[in-house]
Amino acid sequence: MALDETHDPGLESFVDVSPDSPFPIQNLPFGVFRPGPGFDPRVGTRIGDTVVDLGVLESRGLFDGPELSGRTVFARPRLNDLLALGRPAWREARATISRLLRRDCGTLRDDESLREIALLPVARCEMLVPAEIGDYTDFYSSRHHATNVGIMFRGPDNALMPNWLHLPVAYHGRSSSIVPSGTPVRRPCGQILPRDAERPVFGPSRLLDFELEVGFLVGPGNPLGEPIPVERAEDHIFGLVLVNDWSARDIQKWEYQPLGPFLSKNFATTVSPWVVTLEALEPFRTEGPVQDPEPLGYLRTPGNPTWDIPLTVALRTESLETPHVIARSNFRHLYWNVRQQLAHHTVTGCNVRPGDLMASGTISGPEKHERGCLLELTWRGEEPIELPDGSTRTFLLDGDEVIITGAAAGDGRRVGFGSCAGRILPARVGGAGS
Amino acid sequence: MALDETHDPGLESFVDVSPDSPFPIQNLPFGVFRPGPGFDPRVGTRIGDTVVDLGVLESRGLFDGPELSGRTVFARPRLNDLLALGRPAWREARATISRLLRRDCGTLRDDESLREIALLPVARCEMLVPAEIGDYTDFYSSRHHATNVGIMFRGPDNALMPNWLHLPVAYHGRSSSIVPSGTPVRRPCGQILPRDAERPVFGPSRLLDFELEVGFLVGPGNPLGEPIPVERAEDHIFGLVLVNDWSARDIQKWEYQPLGPFLSKNFATTVSPWVVTLEALEPFRTEGPVQDPEPLGYLRTPGNPTWDIPLTVALRTESLETPHVIARSNFRHLYWNVRQQLAHHTVTGCNVRPGDLMASGTISGPEKHERGCLLELTWRGEEPIELPDGSTRTFLLDGDEVIITGAAAGDGRRVGFGSCAGRILPARVGGAGS
Repeated sequence: MALDETHDPGLESFVDVSPDSPFPIQNLPFGVFRPGPGFDPRVGTRIGDTVVDLGVLESRGLFDGPELSGRTVFARPRLNDLLALGRPAWREARATISRLLRRDCGTLRDDESLREIALLPVARCEMLVPAEIGDYTDFYSSRHHATNVGIMFRGPDNALMPNWLHLPVAYHGRSSSIVPSGTPVRRPCGQILPRDAERPVFGPSRLLDFELEVGFLVGPGNPLGEPIPVERAEDHIFGLVLVNDWSARDIQKWEYQPLGPFLSKNFATTVSPWVVTLEALEPFRTEGPVQDPEPLGYLRTPGNPTWDIPLTVALRTESLETPHVIARSNFRHLYWNVRQQLAHHTVTGCNVRPGDLMASGTISGPEKHERGCLLELTWRGEEPIELPDGSTRTFLLDGDEVIITGAAAGDGRRVGFGSCAGRILPARVGGAGS
Repeated sequence: MALDETHDPGLESFVDVSPDSPFPIQNLPFGVFRPGPGFDPRVGTRIGDTVVDLGVLESRGLFDGPELSGRTVFARPRLNDLLALGRPAWREARATISRLLRRDCGTLRDDESLREIALLPVARCEMLVPAEIGDYTDFYSSRHHATNVGIMFRGPDNALMPNWLHLPVAYHGRSSSIVPSGTPVRRPCGQILPRDAERPVFGPSRLLDFELEVGFLVGPGNPLGEPIPVERAEDHIFGLVLVNDWSARDIQKWEYQPLGPFLSKNFATTVSPWVVTLEALEPFRTEGPVQDPEPLGYLRTPGNPTWDIPLTVALRTESLETPHVIARSNFRHLYWNVRQQLAHHTVTGCNVRPGDLMASGTISGPEKHERGCLLELTWRGEEPIELPDGSTRTFLLDGDEVIITGAAAGDGRRVGFGSCAGRILPARVGGAGS
């Protein structure tokens, strides 16, 4: 991908955008929203604090390029139809939207009645999960995270499993419980083995955690039996979202052997509503970490296969109104990049479909403040975090809200996701029994 | 559930049914089929070697009971709409179909033009995956299988993990690669660690295996955050299918720690096209194995929570035209039953949706010939199976076809699934590189 005029740092829109907004005209993320209660969901983009109803622009015939003319992809309750079309259509959509929002283009700017139905205040819109996610895969691609967790569970000598530096470890997650940012998350109950006990008990998780992740949405899929080569992997990747892979560590510890995490992860996964496209991230490309040993041929990715995207995790509690940043990390810390993840996922012939979500796993950096979950930040609860009001946290309490944000920055502007947030509700009383 | 007139052993249909067919009028399974190339898929049932197009009967207004009248659930390309309605609708559908197919009912019997479009020879029909499967979960519920695998991988002292007798271990599978019986399965390539090597190589799996499983399709789902109590679990279970969870053991061994199987299982999963309902299985109810230690309260299932369903695995090879039975097992061998599986899956609040597939894991019995996969049958390849033509097998070769069948039997009749079959194609030449 190369930079085109949609990235021009001088580009300005007739729509107001504050200088620190992560949604300048150079971003143009895609999402699915309802303009108000009772309305059908449709596809939009966001600029500043304005949501642009792309279904309306589509119905007016404004997507008139060769890839999109005559198609219906935006007046849809999900991004999947757009995702299936592939990069030429995505680039054309972006170019058209960029042109329509420019200060020097009168089409939308001067049509008051069109502006009235197509440009909506973000506060009025309900954001939804952006795609129908057929399958959700969660990788484990941060070396710092895998090492920290490995030290805690198996000691420093066996921290990384022998396979870890050779392949992007992953497991299948649960699609049904993926929720959009803002959805409350109920503390799960489950089986937990008390310390020194021989038999488990049933009860609410006491070691509830977040995981700072970034995922990608798959574009065009592949037929069953035909791998996607690593050199063409990005043709199948539409864009990125923030992900919080909520985790119940006590349930996880008891259940996870030998087949991996199951109930400890499948009660909820939160995603940010805005999908930032690879086009928008192009100026922020960067090298990944050095990979030693060199990966097998089907996993080699020369060039700049990843992006520099600073990420933060903030915590708001019942006694702390202003969210407090408890971790800062960066997407570039990931050892295995998205091309490698997709090539590996399909190398057996496994098929992927438009809308599939593949998340990174917890993104931790080398420094202590860059750890992407409470398990690591508090080192299994042994080193509580102190909050500005004097309270402390080991794991999440009821009422805590976790707010993940992320934005790439450069040329005096930010290109970001907004937030991926969720607040913990108390466990269900009188649950399924003991 | 109680037996009703649809189970009457004396019931006969005007449609020919051979005495050994697993599809007598007491079965009436549901599936999705195309009546021929170019036709839209629709829902049908099967009696003998005849497929009944339920979409046609529905369009004639023949489903005229209170639950189904005025609805469109059969003229659909998937069972999900029927699944969402729940047991009262399922029972009504079964009673209506049973009545229409009885020898003493003239509605269909005497209407030649209706019979012509509604009753089709099975050989003409293409069977499809019966539901849109949102999420696929694979359990690990056979104690004999888990013990055998545990002995092979960890020795006899640690064969069963400490959690195994307390909860039904499971992992999330891949929905996209679920295929209907008859779909060829391409031998996957992937990373394999050669014996005594320190670094993996890339190549075709040499330890390709089947897994004899039975799965259930979920009916009405539950809202996120609200578990399904074990006492009501069967209200959410529509019926059973045969499942072959193809497995590449060499890929599995290298990749599976610490997050469980991933690529070794996701290249293909085969399901039988006919879903046998819990109603049809009612006469074959039975106790499960004694559970000691007693499970926690949310997993207790008094009564007869499972079914006596003999299962067989047969192998056809390029040199052996007649399939040879290599394993016989029984659904009743499962330690954890379907009620426990569903209650456990949702106890954290995880939501399930109509059409979700939950498979049992390999169903092995106590005897050697009852082992449900080649890994166990050949004890990691150390004890090859002998076939009638003098050839042997440790793991599957290209051209081998695995045919799983299952049928409950009693009162002089069989109620079964037909077959769940797949043939191995050679690995893709010039794959994704080494």
